[in-house]
Amino acid sequence: MKTRVALLGAGRIGQVHAKNIAGHSSSELVSVTDVFASAAEELAGKYGAKVMATEEVLADSSIDAIVIATPTDTHSDLMEAAVEAGKSILCEKPVDLSLKRAKACLAATKDSRSPIMMGFNRRFDPNFASLRTAVADGKIGKTELLSITSFDPAPPPVSYVKSSGGLFRDMMIHDFDMANFLMGEAPVSVSAVGSAVVDPAIGEAGDVDTAVVTMTYADGRIAVIKNSRRAAYGYDQRVEVLGSEGLLSVENIRKTSVSLATAAGVTSANPEDFFLERYRNAYVSEWQAFLDAISNETPVPVSIEDGVLALAMAEASTLSSAEGRPVTLESVMG
Amino acid sequence: MKTRVALLGAGRIGQVHAKNIAGHSSSELVSVTDVFASAAEELAGKYGAKVMATEEVLADSSIDAIVIATPTDTHSDLMEAAVEAGKSILCEKPVDLSLKRAKACLAATKDSRSPIMMGFNRRFDPNFASLRTAVADGKIGKTELLSITSFDPAPPPVSYVKSSGGLFRDMMIHDFDMANFLMGEAPVSVSAVGSAVVDPAIGEAGDVDTAVVTMTYADGRIAVIKNSRRAAYGYDQRVEVLGSEGLLSVENIRKTSVSLATAAGVTSANPEDFFLERYRNAYVSEWQAFLDAISNETPVPVSIEDGVLALAMAEASTLSSAEGRPVTLESVMG
Amino acid sequence: MKTRVALLGAGRIGQVHAKNIAGHSSSELVSVTDVFASAAEELAGKYGAKVMATEEVLADSSIDAIVIATPTDTHSDLMEAAVEAGKSILCEKPVDLSLKRAKACLAATKDSRSPIMMGFNRRFDPNFASLRTAVADGKIGKTELLSITSFDPAPPPVSYVKSSGGLFRDMMIHDFDMANFLMGEAPVSVSAVGSAVVDPAIGEAGDVDTAVVTMTYADGRIAVIKNSRRAAYGYDQRVEVLGSEGLLSVENIRKTSVSLATAAGVTSANPEDFFLERYRNAYVSEWQAFLDAISNETPVPVSIEDGVLALAMAEASTLSSAEGRPVTLESVMG
Amino acid sequence: MKTRVALLGAGRIGQVHAKNIAGHSSSELVSVTDVFASAAEELAGKYGAKVMATEEVLADSSIDAIVIATPTDTHSDLMEAAVEAGKSILCEKPVDLSLKRAKACLAATKDSRSPIMMGFNRRFDPNFASLRTAVADGKIGKTELLSITSFDPAPPPVSYVKSSGGLFRDMMIHDFDMANFLMGEAPVSVSAVGSAVVDPAIGEAGDVDTAVVTMTYADGRIAVIKNSRRAAYGYDQRVEVLGSEGLLSVENIRKTSVSLATAAGVTSANPEDFFLERYRNAYVSEWQAFLDAISNETPVPVSIEDGVLALAMAEASTLSSAEGRPVTLESVMG
Repeated sequence: MKTRVALLGAGRIGQVHAKNIAGHSSSELVSVTDVFASAAEELAGKYGAKVMATEEVLADSSIDAIVIATPTDTHSDLMEAAVEAGKSILCEKPVDLSLKRAKACLAATKDSRSPIMMGFNRRFDPNFASLRTAVADGKIGKTELLSITSFDPAPPPVSYVKSSGGLFRDMMIHDFDMANFLMGEAPVSVSAVGSAVVDPAIGEAGDVDTAVVTMTYADGRIAVIKNSRRAAYGYDQRVEVLGSEGLLSVENIRKTSVSLATAAGVTSANPEDFFLERYRNAYVSEWQAFLDAISNETPVPVSIEDGVLALAMAEASTLSSAEGRPVTLESVMG
Repeated sequence: MKTRVALLGAGRIGQVHAKNIAGHSSSELVSVTDVFASAAEELAGKYGAKVMATEEVLADSSIDAIVIATPTDTHSDLMEAAVEAGKSILCEKPVDLSLKRAKACLAATKDSRSPIMMGFNRRFDPNFASLRTAVADGKIGKTELLSITSFDPAPPPVSYVKSSGGLFRDMMIHDFDMANFLMGEAPVSVSAVGSAVVDPAIGEAGDVDTAVVTMTYADGRIAVIKNSRRAAYGYDQRVEVLGSEGLLSVENIRKTSVSLATAAGVTSANPEDFFLERYRNAYVSEWQAFLDAISNETPVPVSIEDGVLALAMAEASTLSSAEGRPVTLESVMG
Repeated sequence: MKTRVALLGAGRIGQVHAKNIAGHSSSELVSVTDVFASAAEELAGKYGAKVMATEEVLADSSIDAIVIATPTDTHSDLMEAAVEAGKSILCEKPVDLSLKRAKACLAATKDSRSPIMMGFNRRFDPNFASLRTAVADGKIGKTELLSITSFDPAPPPVSYVKSSGGLFRDMMIHDFDMANFLMGEAPVSVSAVGSAVVDPAIGEAGDVDTAVVTMTYADGRIAVIKNSRRAAYGYDQRVEVLGSEGLLSVENIRKTSVSLATAAGVTSANPEDFFLERYRNAYVSEWQAFLDAISNETPVPVSIEDGVLALAMAEASTLSSAEGRPVTLESVMG
Repeated sequence: MKTRVALLGAGRIGQVHAKNIAGHSSSELVSVTDVFASAAEELAGKYGAKVMATEEVLADSSIDAIVIATPTDTHSDLMEAAVEAGKSILCEKPVDLSLKRAKACLAATKDSRSPIMMGFNRRFDPNFASLRTAVADGKIGKTELLSITSFDPAPPPVSYVKSSGGLFRDMMIHDFDMANFLMGEAPVSVSAVGSAVVDPAIGEAGDVDTAVVTMTYADGRIAVIKNSRRAAYGYDQRVEVLGSEGLLSVENIRKTSVSLATAAGVTSANPEDFFLERYRNAYVSEWQAFLDAISNETPVPVSIEDGVLALAMAEASTLSSAEGRPVTLESVMG
């Protein structure tokens, strides 16, 4: 019997989920909800689903699961309500922009009997997942130094930046989760620097567009994350882990495997444009993992705890960058 | 309104087509036909289609198009019958093992008012398609020398080899079509060598498992195709075109972008396993192209003529390899 | 007329210089000096040079230039004496382990009429030099974020570590100079973390073996340097510069261009073993640059000022790592 | 005691030898000979050697070895005379343009007690040598299919082409020797096609500028060589060997390891310009191998027999290309 799914949010990421829900042989897209009625209608129509209001969704006992792809400030409320209604939940990152609110949400939902999974899509990318398996299999011995390069192709509008919670909460949060995924534990302390060298207007809005965060772990290991809001050549998503016996790397995925050699040099294709292309397969695997957690009654691979942890790292980094000093995770977690 | 499609053949390649037909918003998989009833039922069931006999399909005026994924020796008969019934046709390669029969089929179907397209999937691979566009755009000036490397991961069973028509008709036919696609015309003459160095049993069955074919063109250009039935590292599919101003290449697609550096060297992932994986996207694009040809009433991108031409090159190569002399295409086309 | 050169120090790096001095058509290796007489004799004998004491070298007016490849704690004294004697000088890095002493040496030698060049060999590597030219040519627009990966193949003996001045002064000093070379100015502030995860004995000796330093520049640009004393796969020397219009990278140089594809993956050769192999060409170019500075009476490409600056960055990083806070360069430069 | 060497021929390749002879600690460049006195004088002067006439060289019993880097039509005569004079010989390829003359030279010199080595430099390239070792070590199991890509950066002047003996003798002869080096035996039969698509004037001069030769071996193995006189992107020198357990490849050596990623793609450096750059190390190793053969009294790694064999393959290919039929090696060897 197919899992009956309601989608909240018909934006860019909601559309990805709609396609994967409808295209999977074990799930059915029952409804789409969005404050913009036309967006909800168009997306619902494409997959033969209904348009429903959030209240209707929550009240409809035939709906098994909801996917939350709405604006960030609604995530916590919706998760709490959905738990109340007994639904399984897949929620887009972050839990909230406020760490306090996120922790409250975690507390309020911790007794849910249905799975609650956070949408850190990159964990499901076959390349990163393969790297993590190789680490776990001891291919490089003991891990020592993690390095994440994560550049967006182009900065978002300043209007978006203003309500985004800042680069650390909005963009680097994915990399914080990736660090947790690969290092297997949270860091003790973070040290962040950031500036607005891409676009001064981002700086005027109180945010940074280029940042480096160094993290230290209890056992002496170190991780470093580099973010930029702009990479003229495309979406740059690379990871390296140095261990006692070697180095594991994930390189970018190129648009094609074509190369052109002329007197001007040997030119290969750029990386995939952005996350919708780069992580297309990751979203499919993420959906599968969510369905598996429901049907097998196994723990979700990414929990609200994971979401709260990444958010705490973002909060600590924001503070560290602003005050020019290392910040312990403990101090922000309270 | 969706194009209503009947699938003939529920084997490995039929399953690929079924998924793409059913997954496309403009087509509907109406029926599946196979001599093995259980195979037809299973595949039909998966996509909510019916099981129908070939005669029923041809007689059903509600069916717009048929996809022929049956054994090779049925292709010509089915195409002729489907043209008679007014259906659009996508037929797997080759047209036939007999060039004479293929030419007869071409003659018999040449007045069809509905599209007839041959399933040379590689033309639709985004990488090869991009290379061809780059050639057409003059990125390497005038083309001079084409080189195709095409190795299967492992040889088929000898029982298959015996009824396959031989390596040139069964395997290299894809590369002949690729050469035609990239060079824009047929060669004048082919010169083939082949041997059974992978598996002597293939030689005892009268076939070769390793072969090189050199082709010459009217304007002096040259193409060379290398085939092997075995590449221990996976499916090796590469193309290079040398032109007056440079070289265009398509490299293999690796399973992941992970690499592992240890004292033993830097190890990257193998190429995709085989055609189902390597050409997954190509089959999707192929289906789109077929639907486009139907709805836009434009010429199909790969015609029966193309199929006959590739078959003639295979026939000439088989003869050349057996007799140790160059063979002109004209001599086999008659 | 050939430049007559005296070499002080017949160790590993002295041997590299001896070969390049003797092998150049415009220079002559006149003498070799070393506290180990047998080492001096062997090296001198190989190139037809004499063994001389330091005092003899300084007193010999026929000697034009000296190359200082002795232990670090002699560098400043030797440079001052050589300036006194009117010699041109090529001195291995660092100027001194003590920033104070290095600054005194700078002051004492600043009026030298003969060139004094510091041996930051990496600036002369054709790859890094080419990257810098591309930056200067505006190939990536305005630079924003520099990233240096610099891993040694294996940690030195703990006995060496104890007298090395620590990782930041001994190893990362090369990367500090590379940052200055590529960013075109000194950073305002450094923030360092380090630990001994490779070898606890290094930690017990009061040093670190793994470290990350983040540097901020007056205009908001950021640089990050990663160091490890151990890379099981060889000497890892990579640089990336992100700019407003793209990314410039220097990849490792592999021992061979051979690759092996088997069922186990596609394996390429490891990077060059260590600096003697990786920077062989850089040392040759460095020697050429020194001869050019002498004969053309042009400024040396790497000055004592550069050496003092890199040392100040090392001192600031040592302090930052120890005290867990960012340290401004101004505060250590005094 | 140093081997005393006389160099015959002060042209481009003679200059490479002069540098390596003079730069080696076990050999001394005694004299240079050239029909152009000024060329001989300049080169001799650079390395402190004398200018001598050929007769003087042969008569000078203090000279141990001669390097023959003169025009091809003098090679056989000079080798015979040098053997007569008891000299060790390193002779540039080919033995002669005439297979008959080469065979006569082989017969005339076969009793020489001093080493006679042919200058097939590519055998000494560390990359090809490493690939061959890997083949010999069974890294890919049993070899099945060899593929050589060998493109010059630009065609020579037509005047040169006219006296070159044609592409197969002048250019592909290196690749024939590489095939023998890697396959470990001579082919049974060759099948060649060639045309003048790069420059019609080359065709008018009776030669080809683009060619493919397929070779078959007694045990069924196959080799294919592709040559072009023009690769706009530089000197393209690649080799692949497919075996029962995998593929070994040698890729091009790039000028630098720098890459530039912009919106236009990811651009890497071109291959080395031409043989002087690409095979710089190979010439050094070749010279070492020659000195080793002299001092160790071991067989030379490349003999006149090897030179005659490669020439026979060139002759067979020339014939095959002209007559459009496979030609056995036996038929030309007589």
